[in-house]
Amino acid sequence: MLDSQIDITKSLIETTEELEQLVLGPDGQPLSKKALKKLEKEKEKEKRKQERAAQLAQEKALRDSQEDDFAKNNYGKLPMNQSSEKTSTIWSKVRNIENAEIGSTVHIQARVQASRPTGSKMCFLILREGTSTIQALAVVNKDTISKQMVKFVDSIPSESLVRVTATVVKPDEPVKSCTVSSVELHIETIHIISEALARLPFSLDDATRPDEEYEKDPALVKVNLDTRLDNRVIDLRTITNNAIFKLQSAVCKLFREFLDAQDFIEIHSPKIIGAASEGGANVFKVSYFKRFAYLAQSPQLYKQMCISADFGKVYEIAPVFRAEDSNTHRHLTEYIGLDLEMSFKEHYHEVMFMIGRMFTYIFTELEKRYSHEIEIVQRQHPFEPFKFSEEPLKLEFCQGIALLREAGIEVDDYEDLSTANERLLGKLVKEKYGTDFYMLDKFPLAVRPFYTMPDPHNPNYSNSYDFFIRGEEIMSGAQRVHDAVFLEERVKSCGVDPDTIRDYVDAFKYGCPPHAGGGVGLERVVMLYLNLGNIRRASLFPRDPKRIDP
Amino acid sequence: MLDSQIDITKSLIETTEELEQLVLGPDGQPLSKKALKKLEKEKEKEKRKQERAAQLAQEKALRDSQEDDFAKNNYGKLPMNQSSEKTSTIWSKVRNIENAEIGSTVHIQARVQASRPTGSKMCFLILREGTSTIQALAVVNKDTISKQMVKFVDSIPSESLVRVTATVVKPDEPVKSCTVSSVELHIETIHIISEALARLPFSLDDATRPDEEYEKDPALVKVNLDTRLDNRVIDLRTITNNAIFKLQSAVCKLFREFLDAQDFIEIHSPKIIGAASEGGANVFKVSYFKRFAYLAQSPQLYKQMCISADFGKVYEIAPVFRAEDSNTHRHLTEYIGLDLEMSFKEHYHEVMFMIGRMFTYIFTELEKRYSHEIEIVQRQHPFEPFKFSEEPLKLEFCQGIALLREAGIEVDDYEDLSTANERLLGKLVKEKYGTDFYMLDKFPLAVRPFYTMPDPHNPNYSNSYDFFIRGEEIMSGAQRVHDAVFLEERVKSCGVDPDTIRDYVDAFKYGCPPHAGGGVGLERVVMLYLNLGNIRRASLFPRDPKRIDP
Repeated sequence: MLDSQIDITKSLIETTEELEQLVLGPDGQPLSKKALKKLEKEKEKEKRKQERAAQLAQEKALRDSQEDDFAKNNYGKLPMNQSSEKTSTIWSKVRNIENAEIGSTVHIQARVQASRPTGSKMCFLILREGTSTIQALAVVNKDTISKQMVKFVDSIPSESLVRVTATVVKPDEPVKSCTVSSVELHIETIHIISEALARLPFSLDDATRPDEEYEKDPALVKVNLDTRLDNRVIDLRTITNNAIFKLQSAVCKLFREFLDAQDFIEIHSPKIIGAASEGGANVFKVSYFKRFAYLAQSPQLYKQMCISADFGKVYEIAPVFRAEDSNTHRHLTEYIGLDLEMSFKEHYHEVMFMIGRMFTYIFTELEKRYSHEIEIVQRQHPFEPFKFSEEPLKLEFCQGIALLREAGIEVDDYEDLSTANERLLGKLVKEKYGTDFYMLDKFPLAVRPFYTMPDPHNPNYSNSYDFFIRGEEIMSGAQRVHDAVFLEERVKSCGVDPDTIRDYVDAFKYGCPPHAGGGVGLERVVMLYLNLGNIRRASLFPRDPKRIDP
Repeated sequence: MLDSQIDITKSLIETTEELEQLVLGPDGQPLSKKALKKLEKEKEKEKRKQERAAQLAQEKALRDSQEDDFAKNNYGKLPMNQSSEKTSTIWSKVRNIENAEIGSTVHIQARVQASRPTGSKMCFLILREGTSTIQALAVVNKDTISKQMVKFVDSIPSESLVRVTATVVKPDEPVKSCTVSSVELHIETIHIISEALARLPFSLDDATRPDEEYEKDPALVKVNLDTRLDNRVIDLRTITNNAIFKLQSAVCKLFREFLDAQDFIEIHSPKIIGAASEGGANVFKVSYFKRFAYLAQSPQLYKQMCISADFGKVYEIAPVFRAEDSNTHRHLTEYIGLDLEMSFKEHYHEVMFMIGRMFTYIFTELEKRYSHEIEIVQRQHPFEPFKFSEEPLKLEFCQGIALLREAGIEVDDYEDLSTANERLLGKLVKEKYGTDFYMLDKFPLAVRPFYTMPDPHNPNYSNSYDFFIRGEEIMSGAQRVHDAVFLEERVKSCGVDPDTIRDYVDAFKYGCPPHAGGGVGLERVVMLYLNLGNIRRASLFPRDPKRIDP
């Protein structure tokens, strides 16, 4: 990494800290919030003006230096692409160059992640595309590469996009710092197609550095999570983040693949709803023309209504909204729910085990098809490999309680699991059964919502289950009450006014098959599977009580 | 259909009409809204009480009549399924019975759509499961089926769910009124697993009747769209609606299948956003803890930010929210956007033609894999088969204008197409090129949003396109401006304050590849492909300025 980048990063961090201090006006009094905002805006404007001026000056200098350069057609900045030409160039992917023939010529479009000059005759670049990096170099020769060209290569601002034509060469030693390590590129031509500003909020090298390097050298610049999220677009560019969101996408793909094969139908239930359902707490209120509406807390009621509408097996992947003022590592105010619901013929275990097998499928296929992405995440954040059994482990709630008691924890039979006990139970299960994934069946009725079917043999329990990954809950599900008369009773006894969910209760009056289902939090699955430690790292643009930007 | 059902339907319709009239209080004055509501609620409560009493009386009568009946174990009502047993019964699907062996015994769970007694010794049922119906009959014999049992079969309220064991029999003539027409079922045992109330808001026979029958006999009861939507769960049960939403699900599945094969990543962008983007009009405002937030009008800005974050090719299937007071056949306030965006190397036509081929793929596979569902929709709503060419037709906007002028329409060169002209152009294109699907390229710059890339040769045009099905727009797309300096200019010249979309504009300052994409309205595709005439028929629980329930 360049020294100048470290300086820039440090100075930016200092500036941010300064802004959090009191700023005094000309009269020595602290500035008002409004004045402070104005000041910031002016600073921002001035900064933009300077940036633009610097850019123009640089471009002029480049033109001047190129005037009598034999290599001038081999480098430079291309005009903005407005789609004015189509060529027959074959563009390679950086990731595939690993397998290209040595000595062949390739054309790529990639980002300059970092540059390192060696004297005035040679410059190394790290080029990046998605989850892959490769080393490239420009060396002066007498026909095609001039000193000016090497200087230009060195001057390209990090994160600029370039078009490169290069020869594939086998390096003396594997390039360990890049994901493509068995080959490197010798540059023939290089042109900027989109130039980055010289000052980045943080360097991508800093943002991608493996955790262990910080342990060795605590003086290294570390980019904290808030700085990352404030500059999320830059942050998302790291090969690690590119891999995380490829894996997030894979979880959804595998979820659907498994369910599609079982004849599920994908549904899209409304997010704007007329009444605050499911008890009314924690819902966001929306101005809806001349009245108010609410944001759906889950597709629960609607997916059940689809079962009553004979859809048989349904799933939905959609945002859910929780107006909960929880500022923890695992809560978001908007997250992606993977919801499913299906009618069954005899027993809700038909559904529960089907969902269990679905998770086994997801975990198995992630390892099979996405080993590259998992490896990329592990380069930066090493984690213990995820363990699971072919046939998912099922324990009953009372067995979980017994395990906790054996470990010396005092718990009531019908009390819900606290976060700490959940985690401990995860550890105990891992020790005893060797799996990071298990299903806990037969939760106490009192800790589940009104739509949960009681156990037929013991009224203190219910036909409901939670699924856990590494000791944290990722899914809650149950057999639902499908009988309208009994549902109305349950609604009332749980303190909910049936009239606020009249359409829902009425949906069961005209016959409904027995059914069960569950709701999975996508970001939780990704966070826990990859052991990311904070749910915000598994959400593209996370939303919490304090953050709705960018 | 049963006469009693017609009566009930008619009387319900009359009641609804009555309620819309003024209701007078005891003082002869019209009741206040509040009093009216209270009255309705009381009526509703009374109705529910009566329904419950009727149900209990009926159950008692059944028990009494069963006392000395030799067939009593072969029929009746099962207790609510609480998952108390698992058997090894193999349950058949109604749809598959078409292929079952004649004389074999099958077990099914299905709904009673209608019953028709023939004297006291025989009763016909129409049983329904999903998009399939089959005829079943119970005939008195001396060993297994008593008169009481046939009476019971006749008394099962329509829409109740039943478990049936029956023999597969070849009928004398194909049962044209059912989708399974080559076989019928002779009932051996029948038990209610979930009983419907006797009074339905409308009968499923009425709701499923083919359009042409109304042309022959205008006196037939027709269920209007509002009544359907008010009772959407019942309405969704028709085989037609089951098929429509299976097809909606299929469109999403095929969209993803095509894009997944091209290495797209699925993203989930936030729906709660900090500022009213894209100009600020038509956004819903949300109370967000101690401040306000807004609902995203489209994932436009976020999907482009993902391109700048090197995701390369992204798509999203998610709700979009429009606070537009449009009460038309083709507007919803909440609909499902199929959005995609991808970086390209040289020319936006790489993207546009890829999307074009994606639609060809969707149309081709719909016909191949979902002919059953398309046929079911056509049973009720016949429509002209959808025509499209293997390589999608592309016209330029100016060619479209020329076609309209040839047809005698006066239009300006740079004016947007009105809905009427769009439709007419669709007709002209169909006549000339024989396709219901085409792409219109090179729209005037002035009618497109700020993020649209101008044409490199003529500043009045832009690198943007719309796609049409049967003369209505289903997708809008373009090459986007990827240069931060030029984008800021365009934002300002379109009258948008760049500070309201600062995170977005800034996302392009650190290098961004040229990119293009588009946004498809899912419900529009389904509505137009199936020629449903109203977008509400293609939305599960539609939302418009006047409707947010159920």
